[in-house]
Amino acid sequence: MSETYHRRDILQMGTAAGVGLAAGALGSTPPARKMIRVGFVGCGGRSQDLIPVLLALPGVKILALCDIDEAHLARAQDTVVKAGQPKPEGYSRGETDYRRLCDRSDLDLVINATPWQYHAAIALAAMNAGKDTATEVPAAVTIEECWQLVETSEKTGKRCIILENACYLRESLLIMNLIQKGVLGEPLYAEAGYLHDLRAVKFNTVPIGEPWRLDHTIRRNGNLYPTHAMGPVAWWLDINRGDRLDHLVSMSTKSRSMKEFAVKTFGPSDARSNTTYAQGDVNTTLLYTEMGREIILHFNTSTPQVKEGLLRVQCTKGTFNSHMDEIFVEGRSNRSDSPDWLDHDYAEPTAEYRKQYDPKLWQRMEKQTGVGSHDGIDYMELYRLIKCLQEGREPDIDVYDAASWSAISQLSENSVANRSRPIDVPDFTRGRWKTRPRLDVDAID
Amino acid sequence: MSETYHRRDILQMGTAAGVGLAAGALGSTPPARKMIRVGFVGCGGRSQDLIPVLLALPGVKILALCDIDEAHLARAQDTVVKAGQPKPEGYSRGETDYRRLCDRSDLDLVINATPWQYHAAIALAAMNAGKDTATEVPAAVTIEECWQLVETSEKTGKRCIILENACYLRESLLIMNLIQKGVLGEPLYAEAGYLHDLRAVKFNTVPIGEPWRLDHTIRRNGNLYPTHAMGPVAWWLDINRGDRLDHLVSMSTKSRSMKEFAVKTFGPSDARSNTTYAQGDVNTTLLYTEMGREIILHFNTSTPQVKEGLLRVQCTKGTFNSHMDEIFVEGRSNRSDSPDWLDHDYAEPTAEYRKQYDPKLWQRMEKQTGVGSHDGIDYMELYRLIKCLQEGREPDIDVYDAASWSAISQLSENSVANRSRPIDVPDFTRGRWKTRPRLDVDAID
Repeated sequence: MSETYHRRDILQMGTAAGVGLAAGALGSTPPARKMIRVGFVGCGGRSQDLIPVLLALPGVKILALCDIDEAHLARAQDTVVKAGQPKPEGYSRGETDYRRLCDRSDLDLVINATPWQYHAAIALAAMNAGKDTATEVPAAVTIEECWQLVETSEKTGKRCIILENACYLRESLLIMNLIQKGVLGEPLYAEAGYLHDLRAVKFNTVPIGEPWRLDHTIRRNGNLYPTHAMGPVAWWLDINRGDRLDHLVSMSTKSRSMKEFAVKTFGPSDARSNTTYAQGDVNTTLLYTEMGREIILHFNTSTPQVKEGLLRVQCTKGTFNSHMDEIFVEGRSNRSDSPDWLDHDYAEPTAEYRKQYDPKLWQRMEKQTGVGSHDGIDYMELYRLIKCLQEGREPDIDVYDAASWSAISQLSENSVANRSRPIDVPDFTRGRWKTRPRLDVDAID
Repeated sequence: MSETYHRRDILQMGTAAGVGLAAGALGSTPPARKMIRVGFVGCGGRSQDLIPVLLALPGVKILALCDIDEAHLARAQDTVVKAGQPKPEGYSRGETDYRRLCDRSDLDLVINATPWQYHAAIALAAMNAGKDTATEVPAAVTIEECWQLVETSEKTGKRCIILENACYLRESLLIMNLIQKGVLGEPLYAEAGYLHDLRAVKFNTVPIGEPWRLDHTIRRNGNLYPTHAMGPVAWWLDINRGDRLDHLVSMSTKSRSMKEFAVKTFGPSDARSNTTYAQGDVNTTLLYTEMGREIILHFNTSTPQVKEGLLRVQCTKGTFNSHMDEIFVEGRSNRSDSPDWLDHDYAEPTAEYRKQYDPKLWQRMEKQTGVGSHDGIDYMELYRLIKCLQEGREPDIDVYDAASWSAISQLSENSVANRSRPIDVPDFTRGRWKTRPRLDVDAID
């Protein structure tokens, strides 16, 4: 089975195209554009965070909106009009009407915030129609979709960005800065998680539910939502830019809590109380990189718990634990005076380091963090994307990231289904990870 | 290779003996004894914690001491005399002189605190000579040694205890109590670690070094010291008493920090700076239990860091994070009032729970925790062991625990050496894990 996932031969795509692609990443950098004309697909809950941000950014026009639900579509159109832009054209003729939107000749960028299973299809349609595209997370559900995104982006020369807002967390950029400035030394081990009690959301017993998530929980078992954790870690470890994911193992506990919630909420004879939920309550994935680092990703959206990201790194000169708000730097943090090895060093609070290494982007953006939810990271991810497109630069996140981070889902499912055996991670860059330049945290500005 | 580790056929030991053993755990419970006569092997650093504790316990006599180093032996004899007991006989005729000590007719219990690689041999000698035995951690280095301990204990009817003091941590017993009293629900996921910067200890650049550890770091790569983490977790999850370890996967990062320390400390031409250290800086092991729970064990004694145990559980009704000093219990901890699923619940500080669920043993022992190092847990582990032997009860920890927890070392090394592939954990109880009674936290008193 793993052969399907491995490097796709560039020859498959025709020799001339293959040579051209091998020569450079995605051909030339995108042209600079003062105005970015956007089509937005999927006007549900998430769009209510993203559309206001787009409307607040200079040089963005929303020309088209798409949703199978006409009320949601109308609501989104209304939001755009209230911001002073003309009413965007609406596309609501069923599940594939996004194709008509993508085929418009007057769009530069198609953004989508639909249920997961549509993300790749819409992104592909956009690129094939000559538009850059940005998709909500995850960019794809299967490895096959990941390869299609990569191949289509390379073939069309259009960008495919995954809207992973966690990369822009102040915490995550701080860690990236501490690493890049040499404070912590070389990273050895990175940890992050998506721990979020979504039982009510999945079962749609709250106002802003996401019932389409339930089907994934019923059918699949692995880390179904890896990118919020993987995005930050990828930036700390230069994944696809000096290092790459080599293989992973993944393990899930039994599945108990979804059924228990159903029984408690709907009663024992309800169909939902008699469904088998494949997704284990807690999933843990270990990833090994080519440069010998280790990543651990936690995933649990099924049990009572506090929402946690658990960001932590262990490096050659020290450690950073976001959850504990502690940092330890050899030679700088408090040393125990005792020679007794049973005594040990003490972590410092992070306040001084936060001042000294506060990421540039946050320093700049301090004022604007009120816009959008998720504490400003929605603003920052779209601000950066639009700015890069306007200035004709490569975005912070590209299709290789979209593919690598999203592929962890199916790879983890395969491992879980096979007693946690190691599964190779495809090299979507086909060797270019060795030479692609590292993302400079100071250039994320 | 894994066949060597699997259940050893009871027939191998002879049918009659096999039937007898199959009938009960270790035959009859040990006889009650007012006075426990102890022989102690290994009078190095660790003995300076344990011997004073033994001397403080009522009904314990130390009759014999053994160490290849005569100065250490004399120091230990002196400690016993100063406590008012007769001078113990000394055994110092080389590396195997512990056998003469074990052959004495006047000992009930042989305790050993030698370098790791001697633990199993000494324990076996003691049991074969008709003594109960307690060994420092780990009880064994190889799976083969683990099986030998189990088989010898069963054949001789003598107890083999691993001196895992972490089981008696107030924190660990608190978690055990919260689980057993139903506060957290059923455990799904347990996490613990041994994170301790031991570079100076391994390289012996501090007064109380342990240079014999260095050889393990040079030759081996896995979780070399799993029991401090596994012991507490085993008590939370009833391992070998209702559940069992089924298989594990283990992953290590590259090895950097030991060599860097050597270069920085001894200079680049020193032999230690030109040695290959097999042990990866950070090791992570995931274990799956028969009842579908997951355990994660962290191990890192090679990089600059704060000493941490990282005790954490996720259960069906809530979570406990020792490191964060936080607990979350559904329906009891602070709930967010907002129906917005992006808001989330908040953890509580643990203070009220610590009062209500403080483990019995600690309530009793509060006064005596000054004795020994490690904040009283040395006192408690020996207090419990001696008390159980005096009262003729089964000790809290037995040979199946000693074997299961220690076996993780070599099992993890095998996984690491094979790209983190899954490795079966032998069932040292041969099926008895299903019926052996759970350890009652209130009976640990």
